[in-house]
Amino acid sequence: MEAIVLAGGSGTRFWPLSRRRRPKQLLALDSEQSLLRATVSRLAPFIESSSVWVCTTRELAAAVREELPEVPAAQILEEPAGRNTSAAIGWTVQSMPPELRAGAVAVLPADHRIADAEVFRGALEVAEGVCLQSDRVVTLGIAPRWPETGYGYLQLGKVLDTESQLREVVRFTEKPDEATAQRFVESGDYLWNAGIFIFRGQRMLELLGRFQPEIAAGLATVEQEPERLTEIYPQLPSISIDFAVMEKIDDLVTIPIDCGWSDLGSWAALQEVLEGDEAGNVTRGRVLTIDSQDNLIFAEEGSVAAVGVSDMVIVRTGDTVLVVPRRRAQEVRRLVSLLEEQELEELL
Amino acid sequence: MEAIVLAGGSGTRFWPLSRRRRPKQLLALDSEQSLLRATVSRLAPFIESSSVWVCTTRELAAAVREELPEVPAAQILEEPAGRNTSAAIGWTVQSMPPELRAGAVAVLPADHRIADAEVFRGALEVAEGVCLQSDRVVTLGIAPRWPETGYGYLQLGKVLDTESQLREVVRFTEKPDEATAQRFVESGDYLWNAGIFIFRGQRMLELLGRFQPEIAAGLATVEQEPERLTEIYPQLPSISIDFAVMEKIDDLVTIPIDCGWSDLGSWAALQEVLEGDEAGNVTRGRVLTIDSQDNLIFAEEGSVAAVGVSDMVIVRTGDTVLVVPRRRAQEVRRLVSLLEEQELEELL
Repeated sequence: MEAIVLAGGSGTRFWPLSRRRRPKQLLALDSEQSLLRATVSRLAPFIESSSVWVCTTRELAAAVREELPEVPAAQILEEPAGRNTSAAIGWTVQSMPPELRAGAVAVLPADHRIADAEVFRGALEVAEGVCLQSDRVVTLGIAPRWPETGYGYLQLGKVLDTESQLREVVRFTEKPDEATAQRFVESGDYLWNAGIFIFRGQRMLELLGRFQPEIAAGLATVEQEPERLTEIYPQLPSISIDFAVMEKIDDLVTIPIDCGWSDLGSWAALQEVLEGDEAGNVTRGRVLTIDSQDNLIFAEEGSVAAVGVSDMVIVRTGDTVLVVPRRRAQEVRRLVSLLEEQELEELL
Repeated sequence: MEAIVLAGGSGTRFWPLSRRRRPKQLLALDSEQSLLRATVSRLAPFIESSSVWVCTTRELAAAVREELPEVPAAQILEEPAGRNTSAAIGWTVQSMPPELRAGAVAVLPADHRIADAEVFRGALEVAEGVCLQSDRVVTLGIAPRWPETGYGYLQLGKVLDTESQLREVVRFTEKPDEATAQRFVESGDYLWNAGIFIFRGQRMLELLGRFQPEIAAGLATVEQEPERLTEIYPQLPSISIDFAVMEKIDDLVTIPIDCGWSDLGSWAALQEVLEGDEAGNVTRGRVLTIDSQDNLIFAEEGSVAAVGVSDMVIVRTGDTVLVVPRRRAQEVRRLVSLLEEQELEELL
């Protein structure tokens, strides 16, 4: 089985730790390892490094290679420009030799947390068998914990295998509105889509050909004339695989998995998965607290002192500090937009 | 008229900006000048630098001399150890030649803010006349703005001069309890003592001889045998001039003065006197705010970004960050105690 690690993201929600040249996947947020490093490490021994493919951007390629010295350099692909997951997945599958395309391929985001690697590898193994036998697309499903509007939802259908709880997906709904998400979660009939897909490589190319002919045609040209990559790739439609393919196919199946998954979508999400001290403070680095509860305090350089502070995110780097209430941690994006507007390049 | 600037304080309430080797009086908090520098500058042209005496500690002497290059080096006295204001005032007066002791002397804290220097100098001039004519001790009085328990209160008596509003002080009460302070403020009959006293030097030495004979005797020995300073001074009783003398004398007079006085007793007090932006944020250095109100944000080095934060004090230095709600800014002292306990010398 081959693995495609999507490592081209430029997420801004972990600013000021995450920067243009050091995006989330390169950060060690929930452990001593970067999220990218952990994503690859947890695949072994089921998928070895020689079967790992990484799709990233030219800007990040050097850093990615440094993080993953054991992955063959030719399997770390550099997008001339980020064009979302459909193009990235299509291009990476197409870059594999035909015999590998014929086999199973797992797509993995490079910036998620998975606490239980053994459970996770077990699910991959089941998924491999499913797509090789039936040629269906498999997605891993997570029991929803709140009515998140940023995820995809899998409506559960018939149980196809009792042991693995493999189930049909009646419908895939990407990013529902809040009322719908609420209804989905309350019904108990839905799982979150974790963004981890398993399919036969050839099948995915066929699906892109059907639902995203423009992407497929562009990639076919690149395959014939590799020197035109820089010209063609940036023109490909930018669309996520969820909207492009997953919402459209009618034979999607899911394996429910309880593996301590989190997409670590914000500082607040990180705080949820890390263990705090007796006052509920999650700290990293040199942090002093007095009478302070339920904070996330990171001191990458220097120290941070908090007195009488609750439910805050405080992050200190060598050059800046962020202070934001936990419940507003998503708004860090607004801050990054402001930095862009004001052209404060050194802080981006 | 001579001026004694008391610059030996080691206040901790402006941590992390204030440190052992850079206490509050050496900081530029309310302007571009250090509080010490501003204290001396605002005396001219009424008191020139040749008439300025500074009492500080050995540890701070070099920094004080650098701040006040125009003050004669011999008039910057170095205490072997801090022994509170009675000893400091007594020793400095005693260090003056007899002809100066016979004249008026003003005692000034080095770490207060006075916005209107002209009004202030006018009051000093009136006070000089009063103590030379009547040999009384004069203190400057401030209309109280809240029931502060950390100050001294002057109960107002008879008006002695209509123009200057010079008044007798019926009683001086240092650091009343909260109920008493409340009563004082509501009555309208009290002023805050600003800690600025004017007296004839010789009179102060006599008062110390009467009320603090141990201090007077120790200082007399030091005068006879200067080489014993390091041995004797650290043994002198440590008591403030307010408790030692001002509460005890019955001929104290006060000049009410409206000069934009603040003792800048905490980060919160500083915020009150500085002008904020339209959202009420007082910022210094490179600060970015989104949806944030009524904060005091200082970036001495690097930058600070706040999103959705209100009524907070955030101070970033090269090595640390403080985050504390405005109303708890006084508790920074607890933090400094914690640093001392944990022997985190580099942060003190």
